[in-house]
Amino acid sequence: MINENILGIVAGTLTSLSMLPQLIKVIREKNVGELSWVMILILIIGLSLWVWYGFLNDELPIIFSNAFAVLVNVCLFICYFLYKNNADK
Amino acid sequence: MINENILGIVAGTLTSLSMLPQLIKVIREKNVGELSWVMILILIIGLSLWVWYGFLNDELPIIFSNAFAVLVNVCLFICYFLYKNNADK
Repeated sequence: MINENILGIVAGTLTSLSMLPQLIKVIREKNVGELSWVMILILIIGLSLWVWYGFLNDELPIIFSNAFAVLVNVCLFICYFLYKNNADK
Repeated sequence: MINENILGIVAGTLTSLSMLPQLIKVIREKNVGELSWVMILILIIGLSLWVWYGFLNDELPIIFSNAFAVLVNVCLFICYFLYKNNADK
């Protein structure tokens, strides 16, 4: 019998890990490349609704992994406006 | 009272939507740019575990949105190997 919480934690760790290289790259190069702020905003709204969904269903793996993803994408959103003028350099 | 399923469907639609521009761009330009196949693979494994988690908890919004994300990322993974030699053009 597999424990859903452990499965959710492993799943959340992997999907969270996969987001980090983009954030690190944007921060290191101070360049948002071809990121679209509209898409980041849609993603932040969607992820926030998943956090809400996690609270309604009382599912910690859903809450934590999506809250982490919100954090990463809020950072990307801030970077977008900090670095957008670096796009052509 | 908010229905969790409707919330999950809206959340899943938004997070799914936000993935499409990257896939469309890769297919249209036949160029994977700086995508990393290792990260796509980690993401596919993580998303597949979320689908499994959804089945264990019998949550359709989790199953559908993550299955869609698996599909998008399997396409990206295939595109990676089809187009990786176009990176320098």
